[in-house]
Amino acid sequence: MFGNGSRSFHFPSLCNNIGFLQKNNNVDDKSRIVRFFNDQQPRSILTRDNERDPRFRRTETDFSNLYARDLLPAKNGEEYTMQFLLEVVDILTNYVRKTFDRSTKVLDFHHPHQLLEGMEGFSLELCDQPESLEQILVDCRDTLKYGVRTGHPRFFNQLSSGLDIIGLAGEWLTSTANTNMFTYEIAPVFVLMEQLTLKKMREIIGWPNGEGDGIFSPGGAISNMYSVMVARYKHYPEVKIKGMTAAPRLVLFTSEHSHYSIKKASAVLGFGTENLILLRTDERGRVIPADLENKVIDAKQKGFVPVFVNATAGSTVYGAFDPINEIADICEKYSMWLHVDGAWGGGLLMSRKHRHKLNGIERANSVTWNPHKMMGVPLQCSAILVREKGLLQGCNSMCAGYLFQPDKQYDVTYDTGDKAIQCGRHVDIFKFWLMWKSKVCVHIHEIRTSAFDNVLLMNQSNPQHTNVCFWYIPPSLRLLPDGEEKRQRLHRVAPKIKAMMMECGTTMVGYQPQGDKVNFFRMVISNPAVTRSDIDFLIDEIERLGQDL
Amino acid sequence: MFGNGSRSFHFPSLCNNIGFLQKNNNVDDKSRIVRFFNDQQPRSILTRDNERDPRFRRTETDFSNLYARDLLPAKNGEEYTMQFLLEVVDILTNYVRKTFDRSTKVLDFHHPHQLLEGMEGFSLELCDQPESLEQILVDCRDTLKYGVRTGHPRFFNQLSSGLDIIGLAGEWLTSTANTNMFTYEIAPVFVLMEQLTLKKMREIIGWPNGEGDGIFSPGGAISNMYSVMVARYKHYPEVKIKGMTAAPRLVLFTSEHSHYSIKKASAVLGFGTENLILLRTDERGRVIPADLENKVIDAKQKGFVPVFVNATAGSTVYGAFDPINEIADICEKYSMWLHVDGAWGGGLLMSRKHRHKLNGIERANSVTWNPHKMMGVPLQCSAILVREKGLLQGCNSMCAGYLFQPDKQYDVTYDTGDKAIQCGRHVDIFKFWLMWKSKVCVHIHEIRTSAFDNVLLMNQSNPQHTNVCFWYIPPSLRLLPDGEEKRQRLHRVAPKIKAMMMECGTTMVGYQPQGDKVNFFRMVISNPAVTRSDIDFLIDEIERLGQDL
Repeated sequence: MFGNGSRSFHFPSLCNNIGFLQKNNNVDDKSRIVRFFNDQQPRSILTRDNERDPRFRRTETDFSNLYARDLLPAKNGEEYTMQFLLEVVDILTNYVRKTFDRSTKVLDFHHPHQLLEGMEGFSLELCDQPESLEQILVDCRDTLKYGVRTGHPRFFNQLSSGLDIIGLAGEWLTSTANTNMFTYEIAPVFVLMEQLTLKKMREIIGWPNGEGDGIFSPGGAISNMYSVMVARYKHYPEVKIKGMTAAPRLVLFTSEHSHYSIKKASAVLGFGTENLILLRTDERGRVIPADLENKVIDAKQKGFVPVFVNATAGSTVYGAFDPINEIADICEKYSMWLHVDGAWGGGLLMSRKHRHKLNGIERANSVTWNPHKMMGVPLQCSAILVREKGLLQGCNSMCAGYLFQPDKQYDVTYDTGDKAIQCGRHVDIFKFWLMWKSKVCVHIHEIRTSAFDNVLLMNQSNPQHTNVCFWYIPPSLRLLPDGEEKRQRLHRVAPKIKAMMMECGTTMVGYQPQGDKVNFFRMVISNPAVTRSDIDFLIDEIERLGQDL
Repeated sequence: MFGNGSRSFHFPSLCNNIGFLQKNNNVDDKSRIVRFFNDQQPRSILTRDNERDPRFRRTETDFSNLYARDLLPAKNGEEYTMQFLLEVVDILTNYVRKTFDRSTKVLDFHHPHQLLEGMEGFSLELCDQPESLEQILVDCRDTLKYGVRTGHPRFFNQLSSGLDIIGLAGEWLTSTANTNMFTYEIAPVFVLMEQLTLKKMREIIGWPNGEGDGIFSPGGAISNMYSVMVARYKHYPEVKIKGMTAAPRLVLFTSEHSHYSIKKASAVLGFGTENLILLRTDERGRVIPADLENKVIDAKQKGFVPVFVNATAGSTVYGAFDPINEIADICEKYSMWLHVDGAWGGGLLMSRKHRHKLNGIERANSVTWNPHKMMGVPLQCSAILVREKGLLQGCNSMCAGYLFQPDKQYDVTYDTGDKAIQCGRHVDIFKFWLMWKSKVCVHIHEIRTSAFDNVLLMNQSNPQHTNVCFWYIPPSLRLLPDGEEKRQRLHRVAPKIKAMMMECGTTMVGYQPQGDKVNFFRMVISNPAVTRSDIDFLIDEIERLGQDL
């Protein structure tokens, strides 16, 4: 049952995570939607939402004759700087309020050409004359107005969603500190926070005493790339100096359902995408271990060298968890590096109830884990964790003299920048550290429980993760016999509904084909603000928009 | 002459950017320094700096019994959320004020073990119980307290410095929007801003009609890596599928003074660092074109294939500009890709007076340009620009079905994510776009002029960039004859002064050896807040701290 008694939500035998959505009751009429948004009028920046609250009251400043040059470091710029920043904060806190307000739209969609032509009072063009601070404030407000509220409880479109207030505060502070992770010298507190947090993450993975190594990177794709690089360095360290031609023909393995970043890494690093071998999956999207072993044997017989296996913990579309222990057995048998891509599913390690899905992760040589997904940390926050210490440094170190002077007065092992493929590196740790301090133990468990409860509502008897994949079958297709025509028509349903949904702006959900399956919706529940009513709302919207297709 | 008449600042013949600093006048006594900081007492978070200003007045909220769970999306969480965020903003605006206040320290140095043991009221450890919002606010304040004020006018330590108020506002907004650059669908405004800004940058480079391609990346090292990847794809597109073994032995060329990221790229991408050939430089750190041609011929004679040349526009230590036109001639003659690493020097393209240093850049196939350096944009903001359209896409595209659906309702050429080696990509464009709108034309010219004026103050007759490199010779070394003993003792001077400087916390400047030159200071002027008095202050400090060495 789906939401209420008038709905049915069927799962085909082929995949527990894909279902059919049908509904016969009347659709909600347009007036309800219109009612939601009829008070969403653009406001002058001088309008004050906050006047009821004396803490937010500000004297009026005329920004129309003030310019960036009047702000700090300008002489006497402090007063204007504070007034300007407070005005920006007013815009931002209004946005935060509305993000959590279900009577606001998720987005106010415009086509690229419309935004490029310019909306009233808002031009994206870079002009030759400086604009006043008043216009800059209008630009800030309009940028938010025409954007997408990824923190809205009815945004189900991506794996990253939600707007965590502590994380937001952390990111505001990070921007204000505006420093760089490459040396302890200029980021002492952040470097130590990163070290302590990575150790905690390794403990949670289950590596003895949390030993090992790691670094925060600009995202899961780069973290996965690190894993392939470090595996290559472990097995063929001479590649660093001599290049890929110094190694035999190396092959990598990953699920046909794995994230495309593994394929990107094989291209970027010089392995070549044809040397990435895709593994077959079962009906729930999990790698079939026997297929891995067969393909390893086959590759060896061809004279290739199997070197790296990626196991996905929480696949992008289905949310599937590959069987890590069985894959680890094969990796040990054939001396291959085992990487676990837990970008999406790594957050379940924090959950007593769900961590069993990652059983065996302690046997991995490396792990990708993105706190900016299931754990709700603002973008970007992704960690690559490596079991063996020294490999990251050995693989990437170039010992730049102007940053990593050996004759500093402090313990230079804290200068971790040379482990990275980057030079300057954004501070991604603080927001995560602050969120952890403020709530992580209780919070993560709660998110997990509530998100999974929401999935259970949708009659998924044994959900792997909080992805819910389904087709909506419009009335016109219900009586059609199965076959190519029905498939082709069904393939066009999700894009059409999604297009109308974006024009309405009331909610957002993703869709895609996968393998031989035509376009289906993928709803992702990771925002703790989502309630049962929001899920009902999405389903209502899909039915309302799709009934006449 | 240096600052005032009592100082001398000599340049040895070997390099215009390296000078000797000597001073015979009396050192300033410690009391002046002490006076600067004697009112820097830690304050309770309930202390209000702002009470004089009614706009900042807030009712007192007791955060000691409030937790993250009381904030949005909690029921009735809006009020506490706004109070909490306003409290954070109070901490941040105080920090901003003090950053520009020369009576504050640049840093309050502690060794790693001291911070790890915990300072009073501030522990970095991740505990098992959630902390109250009061403690979270204390953590925010203390994180800033023990950090480094990279925006302070006396911070000369890195190429990135300053705290731009418009950029800061832009970054606060970016954090609040918390979205992702991969699709137009969820970042419509930011995707268009990126496109328009990249086009403007290409116009400034001088590519016809601003045609070409580009993307913002997480930093200059990754941007440089993109350039090598795209060059490889242009010459040997089969490497994407077949790997590096499908190509002949490829060699790359870069200056011995170039940034270490070119070497990192050669290791990461599977070329091997031994296939990166270093070019000799003249006394000012500029590549000698004849050396490039000789080494190209030599490589070809060995059967290698020269494929890529990096010319640096603004080297990391000396600020040297390689002669792009002469290098471009050689690249054309031998059909090699020309990349210009303008991470540091690219900002001079905005200056009528200084852009001639990059003459020939329009002949480059790709350019790295980091607005987060000379242009003062908050970290991270780096662009890779490519002259030929389609290469980035061809090189990196993997057509992930769940993101880049071809059947969307809008023009999907605006979904630029598949050009990247990343999947999720942080929004780095907004702060830059906003700064550009608010001031870029006047501002950049002003920065350039004032920064160069400051360098000219230091009697550099023809500075290449705003790096100033010099040795300080303590009195005890001045009468020593030149020779190995003097060199070795001089080598230890800069690290000792730097260590004392960090303990004092009054100012910061970098040092390094380079080639056969022993440790020397590298002072970087890129913060528009820097005045002549700040430079005098640094020199005074170096003399004060170094006089007894």
